[in-house]
Amino acid sequence: MEEKLRRLREILREVYVLRRSAALLWWDQATKMPPGGAAGRGEQLATLGRLAHERFTSEEVGELLEALAPAAKEMPYDSDEAALIRVTKRLYERETRKPAEFVARLARHTSESYAVWRRARPENDFAAVAPYLERSLELGRELAGFYEHEHIADPLIAESDYGMNTKRVRKLFSELREALVPLVAEITEKPPVDDSCLLKELPAHEQLAFAAEMVSHFGYDFSRGRQDLTAHPFAVKVSTPQDVRITTRIRPGDLRDPLFSTLHEAGHGMYEQGIDPNLAWTPLDRGASAGLHESQSRLWENVVGRSRECWEHFLPRLKERFPGHFDGVSLEEFHRAINKVERSLIRTDADEVTYDLHVILRFDFEVAMLEGDLEVRDLPEAWRERMKQDLGIEPPDDRDGVLQDAHWYDGIVGGQFQGYSLGNIMSAQLYAAALEAHPEVPEEISRGDFSTLHGWLKENVYRHGSRYTSEEILERATGSGITTAPYLEYLRGKYAEIYDL
Amino acid sequence: MEEKLRRLREILREVYVLRRSAALLWWDQATKMPPGGAAGRGEQLATLGRLAHERFTSEEVGELLEALAPAAKEMPYDSDEAALIRVTKRLYERETRKPAEFVARLARHTSESYAVWRRARPENDFAAVAPYLERSLELGRELAGFYEHEHIADPLIAESDYGMNTKRVRKLFSELREALVPLVAEITEKPPVDDSCLLKELPAHEQLAFAAEMVSHFGYDFSRGRQDLTAHPFAVKVSTPQDVRITTRIRPGDLRDPLFSTLHEAGHGMYEQGIDPNLAWTPLDRGASAGLHESQSRLWENVVGRSRECWEHFLPRLKERFPGHFDGVSLEEFHRAINKVERSLIRTDADEVTYDLHVILRFDFEVAMLEGDLEVRDLPEAWRERMKQDLGIEPPDDRDGVLQDAHWYDGIVGGQFQGYSLGNIMSAQLYAAALEAHPEVPEEISRGDFSTLHGWLKENVYRHGSRYTSEEILERATGSGITTAPYLEYLRGKYAEIYDL
Repeated sequence: MEEKLRRLREILREVYVLRRSAALLWWDQATKMPPGGAAGRGEQLATLGRLAHERFTSEEVGELLEALAPAAKEMPYDSDEAALIRVTKRLYERETRKPAEFVARLARHTSESYAVWRRARPENDFAAVAPYLERSLELGRELAGFYEHEHIADPLIAESDYGMNTKRVRKLFSELREALVPLVAEITEKPPVDDSCLLKELPAHEQLAFAAEMVSHFGYDFSRGRQDLTAHPFAVKVSTPQDVRITTRIRPGDLRDPLFSTLHEAGHGMYEQGIDPNLAWTPLDRGASAGLHESQSRLWENVVGRSRECWEHFLPRLKERFPGHFDGVSLEEFHRAINKVERSLIRTDADEVTYDLHVILRFDFEVAMLEGDLEVRDLPEAWRERMKQDLGIEPPDDRDGVLQDAHWYDGIVGGQFQGYSLGNIMSAQLYAAALEAHPEVPEEISRGDFSTLHGWLKENVYRHGSRYTSEEILERATGSGITTAPYLEYLRGKYAEIYDL
Repeated sequence: MEEKLRRLREILREVYVLRRSAALLWWDQATKMPPGGAAGRGEQLATLGRLAHERFTSEEVGELLEALAPAAKEMPYDSDEAALIRVTKRLYERETRKPAEFVARLARHTSESYAVWRRARPENDFAAVAPYLERSLELGRELAGFYEHEHIADPLIAESDYGMNTKRVRKLFSELREALVPLVAEITEKPPVDDSCLLKELPAHEQLAFAAEMVSHFGYDFSRGRQDLTAHPFAVKVSTPQDVRITTRIRPGDLRDPLFSTLHEAGHGMYEQGIDPNLAWTPLDRGASAGLHESQSRLWENVVGRSRECWEHFLPRLKERFPGHFDGVSLEEFHRAINKVERSLIRTDADEVTYDLHVILRFDFEVAMLEGDLEVRDLPEAWRERMKQDLGIEPPDDRDGVLQDAHWYDGIVGGQFQGYSLGNIMSAQLYAAALEAHPEVPEEISRGDFSTLHGWLKENVYRHGSRYTSEEILERATGSGITTAPYLEYLRGKYAEIYDL
């Protein structure tokens, strides 16, 4: 038993090293790699991924898990050992169901399809990607077929949001949509918010430094992380103990991009940095699900980062750092500007209120495609109609419609989007629970003290890593499973005030 | 046959990926890693190293090589396949002789001993490292014992300089020493050169940019490389096709450090960048030996980078970039300053004329220790005596004596130093051959055109990678095996002029 556990940990350590090394190669590719490195990097990444997969899905791991499982059931559910064996077994079963041939085929499809999409999007050429999208859909169906399921999308949702399924997500999303469509309509009938105070040409390095100052206050630890510039912001754990790096981007003339993308990625970063070091070198050393991860990026970006309290502390600092640029701007004016709601075309640029409608559209469409109720060729038209219906705006072309996200074109159709809105729902639910435990949090935030909130999140969410499922963490932390009420209440309350509804 | 070769290439590709990934982790550790990453990085590196070693030394590789070797002997010696099988077999035999237990023991010793040395050097505490040095010596003897040998140092020399042995190195080094000791004495009797024109406080980024401009002209390709700052400069290949990165350091008040360390590392970098892309993903995709590698760093740093011709082109550019700092400095004055000869204590800071005496001392001592003719406890005293004898200067303490290099303390005793001076010898031999083929090279250099020289080196040295041994490359390129005559002629000629001998 002892010996078998030791051996299991040894193999998991190797798998972990291979995966974190691939993460560093990936980070390097996005931040530092000279252009001439590109040709070989893809193969390096694919090889490391394959070696990790082979090692993790080896017969030896299967036998060790088989031998250890009965003993694990006797141990306390919370113990490190029980969690390690339980979670590893679940991941092992998921991974071993995928034939190596399928994994290789998917990897080839991914890189071909992504390359085609990169050219097709600027050229507004949906016809060019349509056959690849068909293939992404077939691969999604094929992947789902490796697992028993009630609904064909269930195994694909479970890949990133274990414990969720189509039925539950649909219920949550229909509650959201029913509340958001009228809320957007109500808000956009009001006079638009003036956000011109944000449209400033500011030195890039000062913008980055200010964003870094904010997230340092939040609790992102730069001694175990760093910040770099990339075209698409991301957070990535490259090694243990918790070397978790974030990236951001600059958009000339708009402070929002570097600022809120930094707060967002730092939310992901703090989650990973906060995982119990005892879980290092194992599959437990990562966030519990895509949705729970997103709850942390959105909590720090929006619930905290776009709150009045937060800027009570930081607006004076912003004025100090950029003398002359924000002199006459009041807290109210600034708070309204960073929370401006607009009917817009692009998901990743959308405000808090409209964002989920973009996500739900995509979720509904991928489920419909998997079910066979929506054909790939009908997608652009369906997109336009649904945008008009939910957001009252119609994309003038596919570039800013069905072609806008890399998802679907860089992998499979299925399970790609639900995590974004599940994250929003959970962000408010967790924040409400933190406030119930510590009603002083908003007042602390207005003094620039984020330690109580960060401490509560670390204690109740971060440290667990993947020891528990996302749902278990939520229940422990908030006393209930996922529910939309706190999120809808948060949105309604905040925007009723801003827009005088 | 076809199938076996395909399979061999497949495994070698995986080994290559693991090794290059470790190289990137190492580069990152030295340049970008936040301090909190340090604790886990060592284990990540050790794990990747072990996985690469296990894969390379597997029985399957042995069987494939066994099966392929007879056919390889039938092929043309120059063919890619013959070279791949021949060199892989040699490396396989070398690696498989080392028991895994020994490799692990050496790795543990290395990290412990290095940590002790890092503390002991600033404290001038030889007694603290002496037991570790004893262990390094035992490990060196043990490693030598895995191979048949004439002299105990032979297998250790062959580890990094395959084809060389104690007898040959001793002969070369005694020729060198016999010429250099009197040359140093003769030079240091002359009035010292005034190098005050180099001692300038200049903006760090401008110094780096100037060094980068120089090596770009030499032929270092920044589209397949980059330059960063580190405490100890190095060059490292992190991926194929030839992503080879260099680092340098800044020393306040002295332009020489960033400048010549960049030229040096770019020499290593150009060698690796110049290897035939057909050799990528195999053990042939690296320089042929430590000595030949060093010949390229020293050729570009010294033979070219400290030549009058080179500065005929670059001194005006230096004046432009740093207005006011070098206005009155003549080419003669500058050329003398960058070639100032001094009796000094530290190998890595030594000038061209005294440098090899530092190296030969270390080589002689490691051979003497291996032979049992020199005890570890007698080393500090022996060091002082030999320094006095050869260089006419005595270290006031061990910090700047026997404790100055990490070598010996970060691995084994044996084979650690000969490459530096073999490199110097070969640098002049190769340059002389290039001049014979292209007498126009110095005149081209004075116009800032390095393409003929770079092209000749690429054609005759770089592209071969490890396809041939260092000695084979030298014979093909210069018509003879390694010989000190061109190097001694070069030094004598250059310094006779500078010091009016």
